[in-house]
Parts: sequence; structure tokens; C-alpha cells
Amino acid sequence: MTDFRPPVADLAYALKHVVGYDQVAELPGFEHADFDTVTEILEEVGSFMAEAVAPTNRAGDLEGARLNADGTVTTPTGFVEAYSAYVDAGWGSVPLPEEFGGGGFPRTVGLAIQELMMEANMAFSLAPLLTQGAIEALLHYGSDEQKQAWLPKMVTGEWAGTMNLTEPHAGSDVGALTTRAVKRPDGTYGITGQKIYITFGDHDLSRQIVHLVLARTPDAPAGTKGISCFIVPKYLMNDDGTLGERNGVHTLGVEHKMGIHGSPTCVLSYEDATGYLIGEENMGMRIMFVMMNSARLSVGTQGLAVAERAYQQSLEYATERIQGRAIGATQDSPIIDFPDVRRMLVTQKAYIAALRRMMLLNAVYVDISTHHPDAATRARADEIVGLLTPICKAFGTDLGNELTSLALQIHGGMGFIEETGAAQHYRDVRIAAIYEGTNGIQAADLVGRKLGVRGGASFLEFIGTMRELDGELAAAGDEFASIRTQLASGLDVLEQTTGWMLRTGAADPNSVLAGSSPYLRIWGLVVGGWLLAKSALAARDLDGDAIAESQLPLARFYAEQLLPAASGLVGAATGGSRDLFALDADALGDVTRRPARV
Amino acid sequence: MTDFRPPVADLAYALKHVVGYDQVAELPGFEHADFDTVTEILEEVGSFMAEAVAPTNRAGDLEGARLNADGTVTTPTGFVEAYSAYVDAGWGSVPLPEEFGGGGFPRTVGLAIQELMMEANMAFSLAPLLTQGAIEALLHYGSDEQKQAWLPKMVTGEWAGTMNLTEPHAGSDVGALTTRAVKRPDGTYGITGQKIYITFGDHDLSRQIVHLVLARTPDAPAGTKGISCFIVPKYLMNDDGTLGERNGVHTLGVEHKMGIHGSPTCVLSYEDATGYLIGEENMGMRIMFVMMNSARLSVGTQGLAVAERAYQQSLEYATERIQGRAIGATQDSPIIDFPDVRRMLVTQKAYIAALRRMMLLNAVYVDISTHHPDAATRARADEIVGLLTPICKAFGTDLGNELTSLALQIHGGMGFIEETGAAQHYRDVRIAAIYEGTNGIQAADLVGRKLGVRGGASFLEFIGTMRELDGELAAAGDEFASIRTQLASGLDVLEQTTGWMLRTGAADPNSVLAGSSPYLRIWGLVVGGWLLAKSALAARDLDGDAIAESQLPLARFYAEQLLPAASGLVGAATGGSRDLFALDADALGDVTRRPARV
Repeated sequence: MTDFRPPVADLAYALKHVVGYDQVAELPGFEHADFDTVTEILEEVGSFMAEAVAPTNRAGDLEGARLNADGTVTTPTGFVEAYSAYVDAGWGSVPLPEEFGGGGFPRTVGLAIQELMMEANMAFSLAPLLTQGAIEALLHYGSDEQKQAWLPKMVTGEWAGTMNLTEPHAGSDVGALTTRAVKRPDGTYGITGQKIYITFGDHDLSRQIVHLVLARTPDAPAGTKGISCFIVPKYLMNDDGTLGERNGVHTLGVEHKMGIHGSPTCVLSYEDATGYLIGEENMGMRIMFVMMNSARLSVGTQGLAVAERAYQQSLEYATERIQGRAIGATQDSPIIDFPDVRRMLVTQKAYIAALRRMMLLNAVYVDISTHHPDAATRARADEIVGLLTPICKAFGTDLGNELTSLALQIHGGMGFIEETGAAQHYRDVRIAAIYEGTNGIQAADLVGRKLGVRGGASFLEFIGTMRELDGELAAAGDEFASIRTQLASGLDVLEQTTGWMLRTGAADPNSVLAGSSPYLRIWGLVVGGWLLAKSALAARDLDGDAIAESQLPLARFYAEQLLPAASGLVGAATGGSRDLFALDADALGDVTRRPARV
Repeated sequence: MTDFRPPVADLAYALKHVVGYDQVAELPGFEHADFDTVTEILEEVGSFMAEAVAPTNRAGDLEGARLNADGTVTTPTGFVEAYSAYVDAGWGSVPLPEEFGGGGFPRTVGLAIQELMMEANMAFSLAPLLTQGAIEALLHYGSDEQKQAWLPKMVTGEWAGTMNLTEPHAGSDVGALTTRAVKRPDGTYGITGQKIYITFGDHDLSRQIVHLVLARTPDAPAGTKGISCFIVPKYLMNDDGTLGERNGVHTLGVEHKMGIHGSPTCVLSYEDATGYLIGEENMGMRIMFVMMNSARLSVGTQGLAVAERAYQQSLEYATERIQGRAIGATQDSPIIDFPDVRRMLVTQKAYIAALRRMMLLNAVYVDISTHHPDAATRARADEIVGLLTPICKAFGTDLGNELTSLALQIHGGMGFIEETGAAQHYRDVRIAAIYEGTNGIQAADLVGRKLGVRGGASFLEFIGTMRELDGELAAAGDEFASIRTQLASGLDVLEQTTGWMLRTGAADPNSVLAGSSPYLRIWGLVVGGWLLAKSALAARDLDGDAIAESQLPLARFYAEQLLPAASGLVGAATGGSRDLFALDADALGDVTRRPARV
């Protein structure tokens, strides 16, 4: 097992030189969040995560969370202590409003903190992550009274939160849920139904758990329009603010999963549990999207974070493992000296750098969209958040799978043996492409809801922004020539496929959806290449900076060797749906029917 | 869990109409192996695997093989019975020489049988697979006496075999092994050392296990030139042919792996165990390659086989899972009606069809290379086997990982829950890209040993053969137009990158190796596209054939949407090694050093 080395220097570099963090620090309300302060916080968070959280990662996998005979849930060894230390340190509250005890820092800083926590232990990080989603829903839609009642202890982390959406027959189709909410004379609701896949649905990290539960009132319209959102605490509250009796919510099971064993994924049963309506009836989907959108960027960051952790381990292994002799070597070589192993390492590093910059850029636009004084600037930032979020989520988690696979591969046979820990990363990260909206749902969101914004102008303007780098790349000389050429090609591909999507659009939505996943990947590849090019350009003025020195080789490798994959995806993005639907289910399954004339 | 439906019809179609099985049946010695007979055998094998072996797959994962306190190894519930039934049915002996009790069928048929067994239970299939590798080594290099002593019961499967190569510090670098073999006065050798990753190194499926062990005699030259190969049975044999006392080989441990839990991966300790030299001293590497080359094609087929099994499960799930409403639907839809789910299904099916045809083609050339009466034809077939084997192994197992991931993804959250079984396929198949030579080793083999055959003429001639399909595609009309165009583009890419590799060659071997993995993938993509095009052309004359009807849509989808990825890999294949080696290990790890000037 490798010690975790928090990538604070790269985070700081990306914030300062690539995604323009200074713009965020200038926003009203973030005056105290200047770059130097933020860097110091990240240094401290990094040390904390490395020392207090990262050591729990392995035990979390081996032991897993478990459901006890008495219906309680126990997290793996070390989780309770790590969580307690996390609450004491106050890291969870950094990006939350000062009004409720938070630090009032930007989302960008919150995301960087999350990245470091996810690197330390992805399973553990889900408890604070879900709490934060619940907090954001309450911040947006809770009454003042609800905010005062619930938020302060959720902000500190003393109380945890959850999101209860899924039911056995209502997954991607949230509107199919059937959990009932019946209004009582006292204004509360009785909530009855079964929810599945509830992350940290019960646990021993905090005494109180504040469930946010989607349910349907008796006369609600069908589908997503008839969903309401409720606060359903594990314990009812006494008037004096102490915990009262248990509410009617119970854990029926904890799933046996391929990864993130430390995170209890619960089946929860609500039996006339007391719930408090958030906002108004039938507003549930809007509230859910507040939780979801924030969570989607965080989940994309999980792909990045687990990839970073796995990469560090594979790099250490490649440096230490002696095997055979590289070309020109006079004695046996560490496997890092073999070109194909190098390819696997540099591929990881380049994609990780690109993803980190992409996630942070998305967060910067979140902050601008919520805090900029100019309404038009806020509106445009919000459009960009809408564009980047599904890309960050799906591209980030697809790469999470692919890069942890490279890290495992570098270990050879040891990678398949569980004691190495390389396999854990590969297993853990696999869920991230599924939850918070599968990556297919992200792609559908990109082409279905986001592409049409202002008739496509939102996307085309962003492409235009990326094209503006061309002049600077041209002026930067020969070292940047291939980056310039490849980025321009990538942008051409992106513009061409975007044009196809817009033209095909309403006339043939199935063909647009058919190409949505490869189209999203083209976006991810190009945005990544653009951000690495920016990163390499900025590095020219930073002699002696450890991170800066690696930016040009990384950007060039990405441009020459990874980015060209975008051109190979045009056929898939614009191939239409004909051949996808040419075979019916019988024909798709036909491997067994004896041929008629062979 | 889905019942396994053996893809016998597609195997038969591929044999008959794509890879030219009739040429094999015409070879001397294979007169009895006509296509109709073979198809009937495969039908029976398919039923056997579906009924007797496939039901053990899940228990194998859940229970795993275990090392008992007394040093014995127990396989999961049902394995002993399934193996016994397999031996009774005689399926393992079908492709082995009649002289030793086999059926005398071609390797092509043996590979099809292996595919069906691997689909039923990959972990289980490894016992017969390793036995077969040991048999082939003995067939090629054993003395007549050794063959008579060991082969008959190995051919029936009553005795199992293993391959003992790896040691803790000798993995990819086999030459680093240190197990000692000291010649005794009676001509036997005393074998002492420790071997790791020994698949089915001990078990309860057969009483006798025949280990083939690589070791080094005291005065042997260093490296691979000083390796010898020994037969080391678990039990010494009495003169009357009964099992005698235990030999000095013991199981120290069974690894805890990410997948194939049913297959005991053993650490074996040899303590002055009695070994019998195969061939002559220092011939071990040649013997190992006999085992390896055959095993590499089989391992490539594992990628295909587990993908097929996972695909069947995902197709059934997609057909049954109702969720949301597809465009134009008037009621809730099975998810197979959503274009992005279709993409995942058709991608699986198209790649699986391409891989099956590729594996069988490779096997056909194996048979031609060993049985054709004309020496020049044999020699050319042997070249093609040399070319196709690393491609089948690496491309097949890389796709095994990617396609089982798609199958898992289709299950949504259920895919991550172990009870579905989708995750097992993803975990099981992951080892196939690693063992029998990592996929990086395969790529190095492709460019290092195979590309240079006759100065590149071997590769260029094969490309020329693929180009010959162009005329037929042109004559086939509009329906084949895009297939023709895309295949021609793919072949151009392949020829261009092959030319670069040949030109770069000796002058810059690190750059050739740097591009070897993407180059191998280009080969895989293009050969797959060529074979599907052939398959679709053949289908035109087969009205009413269930398999034939799907070939054109599959070939067109592959050509338009998957094959273009080849062009996106040119940059990586020909990018050279500069940027891979631009960063040293410190710089690759530099995410933590505080930047100097931020």
C-alpha cells in the first residue's frame, strides 16, 4: 500500500494559473477566500486526509459496513474516529454559509476539499458528500424555521444527511416512485414506502441522520410533477433541541457491493414516519435537482480522485518493481523504464491533470453563477455549468474506470491480488459512472436539455472561447505547434458534431440520443486538451515551479496522443440510430438458433 | 442470473462462412472432422456446458477455492461433480491425438469447445486449459516413455496439469527465476524453490496433478538460456502405474483475488521434489513457448467468452427492465428501447462477433501450420499465427474488460450489487489482460519479434490479403458502400502505421515500443472489421438463416461507428517516446511539492 500524497500543489497550480481562481476571490462575499488563504487550507486539509482518513481506506474495503442483528449499522474500523476528527477540524463547513456556522468559502474550495477526501477514502467521503447535498437543498428551499432547526448541526457535520430517491421500480425514472406522504392534522406528513440504494442510509458516524425523502401525496399528479420532498429525521426532535424518539424509518438491508464496501448502501423502510414538507407540495423534482447538480460535479471528481490515488500507487510500484532490462540498460530495470509502462503512467497523469482542471473550472463557474453581481454574467456562467456538469460527471467517471484499470495493469499479477490494493480502486470507482444519473443519462442531458439552450448558441459560444487560445498558441512558437494543430482539429470535430446534433435535433431525436455518449466524450477530450494547453502556456513564466515544469510535456502528449481519439468518435456520434435499431431483441440474442442452411 | 445460451449457431456460422473451416477439414488427418460432425459436437458441448458447468459459476465466485488446515485445497460446491462429468463426456480429449486416446480433432474445434466452457465458468475452465498446455509441451518435447507414462490420463482429464513459471521476482522476466534443479545419480532431478500464481496448483478435481516446472540447473547460463523444464507430479508413480507417495511439493497459500475465485491460485513450495527433465537441459524456454502460444489464443478467447456471457445477461436485463418512456412510446418502455442502451448492446454484440471470428481464424491457421502437406503453406500459416496470436490475446482481453463494463453499466445500480452477477464477469475477466504475458508484453511481441519477419513482408502481405475484399465489397452495392469506405480507411491507417514502425525500427526501438499497444489495437480493430465485412458478404446467399440476417447491420455498425477509432490511434502509435520519457519519476509524482511562485 502506498501512502497517499495529497496533490495540493497541482490543485493550487490549477486554481491560480488555469481556471482563474482570482475571479472567484474577487466576488462579493469571498473577500476572505484569497488564493493564499485557500492554499493554506488545502495544505492542512491534505495533511489531515493523508493522516486521519487515508489509513482507513483499506480496512473499509476488507471489513465493509455491516447491518447488525438489532438493525443498527456499523461502519468499518476507524471510520467513527476519522469522522469525529473531520467534524472537529470543521473541514465540511468550509464552503457553507457563515450564517449557519460555515466558513463562507466558494464551492471551488469545497470541491478541492472533496477531491482530497475522496482520494483518501472514497467510501468514507460519501457521508459528508450526501450531507452536503441535503444541506444545499435546505438552503435553497427550506423555510427559515427549517434552516434554523436542521442546518447548524448538519453544517458542522454533527448530523449527517441523505438523499432518498430510488425505489425498486424507480431508478433513472424517478417519476415512477410510489412512496406515499399523507398529510396529518398537525401539518406534518406520514411517510410510507421503501427506498433502495440509500448511501449512508444508516451508520454510527453521527447520532442524528436527516433524510431528504421524495414521496407522493395522495392527489399528486402522475410522474415527476407529483413528487414532493420531505425532511425525515432518524430521531424526532424534542422541543428543547435534544433528540427524541426514533422515527418510523428502519434499515432492512445493507447491499453487498463490488466496491466502496465502507459505505453502507441501505434499503430503508418508512412506516408512517414523520416528515416535514420542504417548500410546497409537488416541488420535489426541483429540489432534487439542486442536490443532484451539485452531487454530479462531486461524483465526476470521484473519478478523478480515485484515479489519482491509484496512479500514485502504480507510479510507486513501477519505480520499485525491477523486472527485465530496458533498451540500452546495463542492469535490470525498474518497469518505469519500459515505454509501454510509461505510456500507461503518462496517460494517467495527463488525463488526471486535465480532469482536475475541468472539475475546478466547472466549480469556478458555479461560484460565478451564484455570486457575480452582474445578472448577465451569472446567467452565462449558469449556462456553462449546465454544459460542463454532465461532461465532468460522465467523462470524469468513465476515465475513473479506465485509469484505475491502467494502474491495476501496471501491477501485473499483483494487481489482481486483493492485498495490493490496486484492485480496490478499480472496484470502488466503478459505481461513479452509475449513480447520480448514469453516464447515459448525463449524455442525454447534454444533448436533450443543454444543447438546445439559445438554439445551440451556448455550446457554440463556449467552442468560440476555446478557439481564442489559438492566437496565444501560435505566438508561443514551435514547442506548441503540435498542441495548436491538434487542438484546432479537436475543436473542428467538436463544432462539426455539434452542428450535426443541432441540425438533426427535433427531426430525429433518437439519432441525437444514439450519438450522445460519444458526443459527450468528444467534449471531454477537447475541453481537457484546451485546459492542458492553457496550463502549459501559463507554465512558461514560472521557472522553478515543480508543477509548471511538467505542463508542456503533458499537454503535448495529450494533444498528440490522446486528443486525436476525438476524430475517431465522429462516426459514432453522428452515425444515427438506424443500425442500433436494425436488430430486434430476438436478433440481438440470436447466437443459439441453429442456422437454416449451414 | 441468466441461463447461459451457448452461441453454437454463431460459432457454426463463423466456421462455415467466415474463417473457411472446410480447409481445415480437408487437411490430412482431419477427414473425420467434417463440418457437420463438428457442429453436432459443438451442439452437444454447448448443452453440456449450459447444464453441467454454467450452474457452478455463481457458487464458484461466492465460495471460492480454499486452502484447508491440512494443506489440501477444496474447490467450490459443484466443481468436483462438473469436472467428473466433463471427464466422463470426454470433451477435453476431442482436439488431442488419437494415439493417446484423444479424438484427433483440429485445434479450431478445441478452441470452440474452450470458448463454450469459458462462457459457462471461466474459473472452472482453467483446470482443463492448463492441463492442455502441459499436454502440448509433452507432445512436442517429451520422450516416448514420458508420453506413454503421462499423456493418456492427462488426455482423458483424469489427471490435471499445471504450468509453473512465475516466482516473486520473475514474472514477465522469466529468465530471473531461481528455482534449482539438481541432478541425482538416478537421472531424476531434485527441484527446490517457490512458485507463485500457479493456477489450479492444487485442487480436488483429480487425484494426480502433473506440474510442469521451470527451474535452473547448477551450472546453467544466466537468464532465459539457462532454464530447463521438468515434470514434477504431485504423487510419485509406482511401477505398476498406481499412485505412490507424495512428492515434495506443497501448497503454501491460495491467493485472495478480485475475480475467478473458483480457481485456486497457489503458492507452491518445492522441497527437493522429484522432477523428470523434458527434452534437454536449458531447453525450458522453448518448451514454455509451446505452452504459452497455445494458451495465449485461449486467453484471448476468455475475453470473448466472458463478454458473451455478460452480454447475454445485459440483453435479458435490458429487455425486462421497464424504466421511463422511449421517444414515441405510449407506455413505459424496456430500457432496450433507449438509444444509448442500444449502443451499449450493439457495441457488445459487434465486438463479440468480430472477436469470435478472429479467434477462430487464428485457430484455423494453427491447424494449417501443423497439418498442411505443403511446407510453404505451413510456414506462411505459422507466420500468420505469429501475427494474430498477440492481437487475439491483447485485443480480446482488453475488449473483455470494456464489454463486461458495458454489460454491468446496462444494469444501472443493480450492476454494482454482487447478487446480480454482472459484477462477477467484470471482476473475473480482468486477469486475462495480465496473465500469459501482459497485454504490454503482447504488444512488444507484435512489434519486437513478429513485425520484422521477412523485413515486414509478413505483415504487409496480410494487409494485402485484407485489401482483396475491396472488389467484392464494391460489387456488393450500396448497402456495403460505407463498409467498403471505412475498411479501406482502416487498412490505410494500418499500412501507414506499419510503415512508420518499419522505418523507425532498429534506429529507435523505444519509439516503436512506445507505440506498440495502440498499434496492436489498430490491428485488432481492422482485422475485426475485415472479418465482419466477410461475414456480411457471405450472409447475402443465406436467406432464412438466423445468424446471417444480423451480419450486415453488425458489420455496418462496426465499420461506421467502431472501426474509425483506428484513425484516432495513429497519433499514439507513431508519437514516439519523447514525451513519455520527458518526465522522470520525480516529475511524474509531482503533485505535492509546493509550487515556487504561486
